[in-house]
Parts: sequence; C-alpha cells; structure tokens
Amino acid sequence: MADPRFFSVAGPFSVADVAARIGAEIAGAGDATRLMRDVAPLETASADDLSFLDNPRYLETFQKTKAGAIVVNRKLAEAAPPGATLLLTEQPYRAYAFAAQMFYPEKPPVPGIAPSAVIDPSAMVGEGVGIGAHVVIGARAVIGKRCEIAANAVIGASVVLGDDVRVGANASISHAVIGSRVRIYPGVRIGQDGFGFAPDPHAPIKVPQLGRVLIGDDVEVGANTTIDRGAGPDTVIGSGTMIDNLVQIAHNVHIGKGCILVAQVGVSGSTRFEDYVVVGGQAGFTGHLTIGKGARIGAQSGVLRDVDPGAILLGSPAWPIREYHYVMAFVRRLAAKKKVADRG
Amino acid sequence: MADPRFFSVAGPFSVADVAARIGAEIAGAGDATRLMRDVAPLETASADDLSFLDNPRYLETFQKTKAGAIVVNRKLAEAAPPGATLLLTEQPYRAYAFAAQMFYPEKPPVPGIAPSAVIDPSAMVGEGVGIGAHVVIGARAVIGKRCEIAANAVIGASVVLGDDVRVGANASISHAVIGSRVRIYPGVRIGQDGFGFAPDPHAPIKVPQLGRVLIGDDVEVGANTTIDRGAGPDTVIGSGTMIDNLVQIAHNVHIGKGCILVAQVGVSGSTRFEDYVVVGGQAGFTGHLTIGKGARIGAQSGVLRDVDPGAILLGSPAWPIREYHYVMAFVRRLAAKKKVADRG
Amino acid sequence: MADPRFFSVAGPFSVADVAARIGAEIAGAGDATRLMRDVAPLETASADDLSFLDNPRYLETFQKTKAGAIVVNRKLAEAAPPGATLLLTEQPYRAYAFAAQMFYPEKPPVPGIAPSAVIDPSAMVGEGVGIGAHVVIGARAVIGKRCEIAANAVIGASVVLGDDVRVGANASISHAVIGSRVRIYPGVRIGQDGFGFAPDPHAPIKVPQLGRVLIGDDVEVGANTTIDRGAGPDTVIGSGTMIDNLVQIAHNVHIGKGCILVAQVGVSGSTRFEDYVVVGGQAGFTGHLTIGKGARIGAQSGVLRDVDPGAILLGSPAWPIREYHYVMAFVRRLAAKKKVADRG
Repeated sequence: MADPRFFSVAGPFSVADVAARIGAEIAGAGDATRLMRDVAPLETASADDLSFLDNPRYLETFQKTKAGAIVVNRKLAEAAPPGATLLLTEQPYRAYAFAAQMFYPEKPPVPGIAPSAVIDPSAMVGEGVGIGAHVVIGARAVIGKRCEIAANAVIGASVVLGDDVRVGANASISHAVIGSRVRIYPGVRIGQDGFGFAPDPHAPIKVPQLGRVLIGDDVEVGANTTIDRGAGPDTVIGSGTMIDNLVQIAHNVHIGKGCILVAQVGVSGSTRFEDYVVVGGQAGFTGHLTIGKGARIGAQSGVLRDVDPGAILLGSPAWPIREYHYVMAFVRRLAAKKKVADRG
Repeated sequence: MADPRFFSVAGPFSVADVAARIGAEIAGAGDATRLMRDVAPLETASADDLSFLDNPRYLETFQKTKAGAIVVNRKLAEAAPPGATLLLTEQPYRAYAFAAQMFYPEKPPVPGIAPSAVIDPSAMVGEGVGIGAHVVIGARAVIGKRCEIAANAVIGASVVLGDDVRVGANASISHAVIGSRVRIYPGVRIGQDGFGFAPDPHAPIKVPQLGRVLIGDDVEVGANTTIDRGAGPDTVIGSGTMIDNLVQIAHNVHIGKGCILVAQVGVSGSTRFEDYVVVGGQAGFTGHLTIGKGARIGAQSGVLRDVDPGAILLGSPAWPIREYHYVMAFVRRLAAKKKVADRG
Repeated sequence: MADPRFFSVAGPFSVADVAARIGAEIAGAGDATRLMRDVAPLETASADDLSFLDNPRYLETFQKTKAGAIVVNRKLAEAAPPGATLLLTEQPYRAYAFAAQMFYPEKPPVPGIAPSAVIDPSAMVGEGVGIGAHVVIGARAVIGKRCEIAANAVIGASVVLGDDVRVGANASISHAVIGSRVRIYPGVRIGQDGFGFAPDPHAPIKVPQLGRVLIGDDVEVGANTTIDRGAGPDTVIGSGTMIDNLVQIAHNVHIGKGCILVAQVGVSGSTRFEDYVVVGGQAGFTGHLTIGKGARIGAQSGVLRDVDPGAILLGSPAWPIREYHYVMAFVRRLAAKKKVADRG
C-alpha cells in the first residue's frame, strides 16, 4: 500500500470495472465482482490488491504472489499462481498504467496564488491555476488553465505555458513557448543562453542567443535537466517526448515527437532527432547530426555521425549493434585467454 | 590559513591535545606542549600549523614543509623533514579529519525561522532548528531537532527529516523519509516521480509513482543530485552512504550502507547495491541489477550485468579489472606499433 | 527575426556601419549604404537581414540565402550567391558575434532591489545593481557595480562578486570570490563542501573543507553546473574560461585561463588544467593530474594520467588521437569482416 502520508487511494473498484477501464480480459479464477482496494508490487500485494507482471525476470515472484488480481500478458497466463484472477492484455505495463491511474488519479492543482508569489501585473494567469509560495512570474507571461507552479519556481518574461502544465519546485524557465500537459520537474533550467561564443585570446566574445525553446504537448523534462535556447533557430522538443533527469540539450537541437532520452544524455548544438528516437543513459551526441526516425542508441554511446532511421547503435564511438557485439566477442575471447593463462 | 571571512578557527590546541583527540603517537622533534593555531596544506603550512600527508604523491612536498606538526603514516615517518613534530597513525586522513574538526568545528544552526519562510501550520519543527529566508515547508512535514534548512529550499508535504539534518539552498524534497545527520546539498532533487510511463504512439501514459525515498542516517547527497521516488517499492539509500554531485538515482534503486558514489554516476531503475559498494565518477548501471557487497566499479564503467561481491570492474561494458588490463595491454601494443610505424 | 516577445532589436545599421564595427571588408554586390534591420540564420534571412557562414557544412544554404549581407570567410567568397553583399573577414563567427551584439546589445540590469529580496544589512551592494524577487544575500557579501542577481538566487555570507556579474535564477553561491563580467547561469552551485571524508565502517568522517572558490574575470558557468570549494587549497577557475551546463568541478581543482569545458564534463579533486585546455562533452578526469597548456581532450574521454601541453587525446582511457584512430581502424576492419560474413 502506498504510504497514506504521501498518497491517497481512490476506489475500491471491482475486477470488472478495472478490466473495462484497461481493456483486459478476465481469466484464471476470475471473480469479476471482487473488490480491489489498491495496487501493489507482486511481492507485497495482498488479496485486495491489483498487481502486474511486465518483466519476465520477475516470473518467479509472479508465481508466488498473493495479489487478488494480476495484469499480465496473455502468453504468461499459464505460469500464473493457482487461484489467481488474471487480467489478460497484450500490453501489461500500459494496462497497469491505466489501472494505477484509477486508484491514484492525479490531483488537480489547488487553485489560488500564494500570497508570497510575485506575479507581474501584465502576466496572464488562466483559470484554476495553482501558484506556490515564492514563485516569480515575469511580465507578459501567459499561464494556461489548471497549471500548477510549485514553490520557488521562476517563470521569465513572456514565457507561454499551455494548459495543465506542471512546473516543479525551484525550476526556472525563460525564452520559451510550451504546450499543454507538459511536466517540468524540479530544478529544470529551460531557456538560458546556449554555450555560444567566439574564442578570443583575451576573453571569449559572447554571441547573442536569439532563439527560443519550443516544447510541444505531453512532454516531460526530468529533474535538473538543462535545455538551452536557440542561437538564432529555436531549440525544439516535439510532442510526447520524455526526457529524464540531468539531461543536457544544447542550443538549436531539434528533438522530434515521441522520443525517449534517459538520464544524463547530452546532445550537442544543432543536432536533430527525427521522431521516436530512443537514447539510453549517459549517451552523447556531437553537434550538427541527424538521427533518423526510430533509431535506438545504447547507454553510454558516443554518436559522431548521422544515424539512419531504425538503426540500433552501441558503443563509444557508436557502432551498429551487430558489429559492436562481434567486436566485443573478439575482445571477450581475448580476455578469456587471460583467465586461462592465469589459471594455467 | 582558512579565509577568516568564511571560516572561524577554534584553538589554539597543544600537540598533546591534538594527539589525544586523534589517537596518534607523538614522534620526531616531538614538542608536545607546542601550540597549534590552525591546519594548513603542506605547501603553505607555517610553524604554527598542523598538516598531514596522506597521498604518497606529495612526499616531496612533505619533505619541504614548514608545518609545526604533521599527521602521517607510521611507515612514512623516516621521510619527514628534520626537526618536524610528527603525529603517527595508521590512518592519517581519518586522523586529520578529527584534528580539522577540532580547529573548525561545525557551527550548530542558528535557531529561528526567517520571517519570509512559509511553513504550513500543521508541520512540526523540532527544537533548535534554523530555517532560512523563503524556505517553504508543506503540510504535516516533520523536521527533527537542530536541522538547518537553507534559503529557498522546499520541503514537501509529509516529508520527515531526522535530527541534525542540513538541507542546502534551493534544494527540494518530497515524498521522503530521511534519517539523522544527513546532508542534502544545494540544488538536490529528492522524491519527484520516476521516469515511469508506458510508451504510446499518441502520448506516453504516465504510471503513477507510488513509492517514497527512504534515506538512512549519516548520508550525504551532493549538489544537484537527483533521487527519484519509487514506483511502488521505495527508493532506498542506506546509512553512511556518500553520494557526490550530479548523480542520478532512478526509481526503486536500493543502495546499501556505506556505499560511495562519485560525481555524475547514474543508476537505472530497480538496481540494488549491497553494502560498501564504491563507484567511480560517470559510471552507469542498467536497471534490475544486483551489485554485490564491497564491489568496486571504476570511473566511466558501464555495468550491464550483476556483479559479484568484492569484484573489481572497469570499462564500458565493465570487465573484471584484470581482464580489462589484459585487453588494454593488447590494444596498447597495437598502438605502439603505430608509433613505431610513424617513426619508421 | 528574433521573437519580439523575448528580444528587442536595435538599429537599423548600414552595411558600412556594421563593416566598421566588425572590422570586415565589403565585397560582392557591396551596397555599403543599405540598411540592415536584423540578424538571421542563412535559411530564413530576408533582404533586410545580416547573416553569416561559419561551418562549411552549410555551404549549400549559403548559396541559396536571401540575406541582405553575409559575414563570410574570404576563402568562401566565390561560393556566394550572385548579387549578395559580403562582409569578408578571417574569423566570421567572431565578426558575427560583434555584429549580433550591435543589433542585440545586452540590456543593463534594471537597477533596484525587489521588495521581497532579503539582504543582510552588512552586505555591500554596488551602484546600478538589479536584485530580483526572493533573492537572499548573506552577511558581509560584497556585490559589485551593475550586477544582476535573478529571482530566487542565494548569495552566501562574505561572498564577493566583481562588477557586471550576472547570477541566474535559483543559483546558489557560498565561500567564493568572483571577478568581473562573470556569468553564473541558473541553478549553478558554487562553494559547497567538496566530497571530503575519511571512510569509516560506522559512518564517514567529514573532513572540514576550508578552501574557497576563486573565479577570475569573464568566466561563464553553465546551468546546473557544480563547483565545490577547496579542502584547504582553493578551487580556482581562471579568467576567460567557459564552462557549459551540468559540469562537475571537484575540490581543489585549478582550471587555467581561457579553457573550454563542454557539458557534463567531470574533473576530480586536485586536478590542474593549465591555460587554454579544451575538453569535449562528458569527458572525465581522475584526481591529482596536470593537463598541459592547450591540450585538447575529446568528448567522453577518460583521462587517467598527466597530459602534455598541446596533446590531443581521445578515448576512455584517453590515448593520443593518432594512436586512438589507428586502434579504431583495426577494430573497424574487424567489424567489416563481420559485415562481409553476414552477407556471405
């Protein structure tokens, strides 16, 4: 059970209600009228809890769970513990996401403006917005409906936020136009000048950074991530893109729709991701590249060249994954000789 | 001498007092009654200063130092400059740490609440707590005795801090239960949602993140580090663990006791560190791994598999260190051929 | 055209005025009296706009641009579109920087102190300083002339800022002495304790960190970067050094003049950079190294040893770049065999 100090649970909901909402078929013991009171991981779930199996790594835990009902892939149904009620689906994690949203619906912001917030009189704040203590909102900023701006966040002059945007504590945003349902996590930095200067023996010569940051709808920007504004063109983040914590997005970068960037990734200036690119943690990209649609780049990879659509790369420098594995197998054989030599 | 604008020195203390406090044996010239007025690095120390030698790299500096007394390993005593008073110990850095704490004891917080702080009336604040300007503390939060919350920090609803916790400027904490004597550095982000979503062509489906962050006692969390809360299980940081700056700890990660994570390390979701694991800077871990007790992972390593207790790994992907060195020696020979070829 | 919501353009300026300011020679169609109203990228520039070509990668765009005048290297003049007015220079990016500064001069801070700022009465604030909402400035801090401190930033006790320093939103600075014309971006953390402790099975023993952070003139520190104060010696950043976002600088590090550190670089304790060192993104350095003057370290490199002046290194571990390429060519041949084998 989620700690009630931090979370409040809705429900209960019958197995039938849950199945209808998540589009799953009831199977196994299958008591559709049974009431589920909460969601819980397989290990700790009780008979009143709904749980799920997504990663086959946890199959053993699945077989021992006491969960009252389990969202699971149709293919794994046979491995279910006897007597379990199953909710069969092709996409158990997706289905569980909807179920968990039933039990823990996101709370709308509490409308109102904290007395200590400092909001420029020329800013426009939509209906139902909640603004926390010590928030600062600059001149002519436009805050859409039902946005929530957490304590000590700073929204610069003329920034535009769409509807239902959430800005975390101590985040700062300037020179940006942001869509709807975007989540900016705590400590995010959006819109500061890019790293643009002409070298000079005396002191670097600052190049005015005249672009913006444009963010689509349904984007997440993880905690302490930094997104610099464009130098002249804009820095763009497409709709539905998910960016994890501590990621660096340099000026003029263009990220397509539905991309996923795991924590600590770095993307250098003017590199362009087409849609649905997936990047593992700590990978890096030099500037001025094009990364094709649906490419997948492994963790810690170093990408120095354009990437074809659909390519799967790994390594620093990044290789096509089959070549990478071939090279690594060679190196592994080399290392194995060492082991043998040590024993011999 | 430490800049008196920023630091105030206690003392003076006699060599005998220092030796007693740090458990060292007086040797060399050995004037036990001599007064030490400060601590200083070997290069700049004067006859009134206590210094120390830990890294043998600095042996030459040691031989030239003018320090009045020097904490040093018994084995290096013979290399001491003539006339120096030595404080012999097995663990000079540890002993120096205690000595430096004598001269520069940590100041307790100045009790009191800044008038601009916004503290929910239902929050409980212990005795002797110091709360800085513009701090925000949410409903039902519990702040232990003698905590210090620096300016512009944000403590979310129901967060629990033990006694003697220090929270740095502009840090934010939510959904967390934190032990005693923990130091949260400036800009740290604790407790925000993990990177949990089910992919969807239209827009990612957010999975409610229902766990907490649990932090033991005597933990440090470095500046701008991010620790996401659990998805269902909790994210856990064991007592005595030291986390450097800009580290990423994903949801459900479990770090044991006494671990050390150097700057910019990234740990993916659900990975578990047993106790006393040491990780060099910029290393990364994929999710769902177990890293055995006392394992040591080199800087920039990429860990993709479970790690045995006590193992020492290096490289991306990470190898046992002997195999890594064997492979690197092979590559070095290859590179040497290049050098020869270039000259030839 | 830069979005007028965020930027206001000066001018117009004649081609002759621009040429005089940036030290360029007018060529091509060359109408010196023509008025330029703005700067713009080659793709989008109109006849009223000044643009520039620096990266030969964009030569094709250059040939199609409608820009009224183009700053370009003398050598590329022949490739210019017919009828274009050219501003010829040896260093087009540098010249463009000056031109862009004509059109978009940096606004001086709006002098004044926000009513919600909390400034210790013993702090000294120079003429023409602008201090944003909820800023906190500690006792005895010294803020030079025309500094701008953005909202929610925290300047600790006794910190010294020179003239014309800009501190971004939500940044925090303690234990630091900072020169003039320095830019501290949003979320930067300067001056917190380094990662200094003596390990102990019970709990790590904190070593008091008694040094400062000293920053020269004309330095930039990128968003969410962290610079720890020295342990005894100071942490030093030389004049004219540019540090990008999310960089980690550990205690006692000494960075020379005119160095460039790209995003997510990590430098371990006591490492020393001589002047004009350039480091690519995500590279890391172990502690106690010396990196020679003008050395260039590639992105994602791992530097474990001292580096000679002028050396060019790449890889993890870092190699001289020629050896690195030789080794990579060997590995590439190996990978090519795999491709052939797959086809065969």
